[in-house]
Amino acid sequence: MSTLLPRIAVTSGEPSGIGPDLCIQLAQYELACELIVIADPELLQQRAKQLNLPLSINLFNAQQKIQQHVAGALTVLPCSLSEPVNCGILNKNNSHYVLQTIELATKGCLDGLFAAMVTAPVHKGIINDAGIAFTGHTEYIATITGGHPVMMLATEGLRVALATTHLPLSEVSRAITRETLLTVIHLLDADLRHRFGLQQPHILVCGLNPHAGESGHLGREEIEVIEPALDQCRLDGISLQGPLPADTLFTAKYLDKADAVLAMYHDQGLPVLKYKGFGKAVNITLGLPIIRTSVDHGTALDLAGTGKAEVSSLVFALQTAIQMSASSETATQ
Amino acid sequence: MSTLLPRIAVTSGEPSGIGPDLCIQLAQYELACELIVIADPELLQQRAKQLNLPLSINLFNAQQKIQQHVAGALTVLPCSLSEPVNCGILNKNNSHYVLQTIELATKGCLDGLFAAMVTAPVHKGIINDAGIAFTGHTEYIATITGGHPVMMLATEGLRVALATTHLPLSEVSRAITRETLLTVIHLLDADLRHRFGLQQPHILVCGLNPHAGESGHLGREEIEVIEPALDQCRLDGISLQGPLPADTLFTAKYLDKADAVLAMYHDQGLPVLKYKGFGKAVNITLGLPIIRTSVDHGTALDLAGTGKAEVSSLVFALQTAIQMSASSETATQ
Repeated sequence: MSTLLPRIAVTSGEPSGIGPDLCIQLAQYELACELIVIADPELLQQRAKQLNLPLSINLFNAQQKIQQHVAGALTVLPCSLSEPVNCGILNKNNSHYVLQTIELATKGCLDGLFAAMVTAPVHKGIINDAGIAFTGHTEYIATITGGHPVMMLATEGLRVALATTHLPLSEVSRAITRETLLTVIHLLDADLRHRFGLQQPHILVCGLNPHAGESGHLGREEIEVIEPALDQCRLDGISLQGPLPADTLFTAKYLDKADAVLAMYHDQGLPVLKYKGFGKAVNITLGLPIIRTSVDHGTALDLAGTGKAEVSSLVFALQTAIQMSASSETATQ
Repeated sequence: MSTLLPRIAVTSGEPSGIGPDLCIQLAQYELACELIVIADPELLQQRAKQLNLPLSINLFNAQQKIQQHVAGALTVLPCSLSEPVNCGILNKNNSHYVLQTIELATKGCLDGLFAAMVTAPVHKGIINDAGIAFTGHTEYIATITGGHPVMMLATEGLRVALATTHLPLSEVSRAITRETLLTVIHLLDADLRHRFGLQQPHILVCGLNPHAGESGHLGREEIEVIEPALDQCRLDGISLQGPLPADTLFTAKYLDKADAVLAMYHDQGLPVLKYKGFGKAVNITLGLPIIRTSVDHGTALDLAGTGKAEVSSLVFALQTAIQMSASSETATQ
């Protein structure tokens, strides 16, 4: 167990979406960390008023020693909006603000100022409309930190990592190479050990094709690519099982003995995870030199300022970040 | 409600697997139908002895009027094995026997002798080893009956139909054509009405790509193929929603209002269904002029004769066939 209280940065995401609401709702809890929200303080005050929630803001001072979060108070690392915000109305002129909050959190983690970062949702389209090439949170963070990001979603009792993420389905088969699988599986195994405190993690690996290719009758990638990669990983001391048919893998017989599932692509692994834990799921980026978790939902523009946004995913993302930083600290002691 | 008791044929599947065991286990229940098992009577007697279960066999007589199944008794439509069977040991010389049981059931349904057929699992590999081109139960039945088979799995509270079934993943995108979607959706809608008694079924349709293509950023099949096909179906009076991202579709928000989900491919739809209902799921073939249901599992060679085979899926498959024949009768009255 960590003896130190972790200091955790939360980026408030798209300002016209529910990100600021969620940060304010989160601040109402007693938390087992110091919570630092990166946002425009005025935006938070305004939104708190709209939500009719108490909020006493202190500005972050890196020199002060870490203090446990107190319900209703909030420490803010300030970052200035370019233009005022109207709930639910995207404004491309605030895109640089959004990216700056992410950059501050990421660099703070790299510098050891924060133990971990948690991100509220951003709106990819409006950042692109601002003329900025932005393919996603994860990729943006990785350009700052380096590393090979691996996406993993988790909910109570199930973790699903992905070998490929946001690719058209027709490109998935080509993207499943021996090298990619070796990289992803080694990173997954390493992070399950160091970030989750598992001594000998056991990983279930899906096949690419239905019935895991049925001995080559339904595709040959299992025989030519996946099995050789898994054999190499086993030689490297990684405990895994597969390639297994994805439609029977997600049953107690297999899951009861496993710490994580590696799906070959997005819609093979995430429907089950979100069916099981929607609203109580967390998106974790493995393979980076920092700890980053995120909510499992979008900006929900129509709910901003209404008080109807559901904070459970952000709570779970923060709890996961706290646990991961405790495990990481133990691992490096 | 049907006033007549349905007569339902059950094929016993691969003789060295658990199919015969399940038929004998099923026969121990009181059932709301006349149960006709198609198998070699000697095999059933032998297996019943091995399982230490009572079994009194009557040979089927098509002239007799339909009688409700009595626990422990069993009406058998006999079909002769070529060679004796050893539990767990496949024998290609019995492959013709396996196919003959399916043919007898299918033709009996076409002739109106049976209201529906339920199939125990077969072993594709051993049938192929016998030099017979056999790609699966469903396709084999369709060559006898005609029609365009549509695979749908169902469990309590969820039905998932597939636009494509047993294809390598790399071929899925090409197989999703406007024509295929129109055919499959019309058949699904028609069978939900006529076989399931739903007056205005509501169907959720998955996108092909992650996030349903995210406005074309992650693939263009949604824009070019799926959306035009769905628009046409709506014009034809079908109630549907989509294309929806598969990872958020399987949540209460959508599922609560839906009668069935159409997934674009095998591993997009079936992992959730089997996660939710493994062992309590049924495989239904829509789009045929007959009613056919099946178990959701394989031959489990290692369990044959042990008494450890789980009959729940066959029970559910039979119950579904009974309900479907009652709805179909009402629909044609």
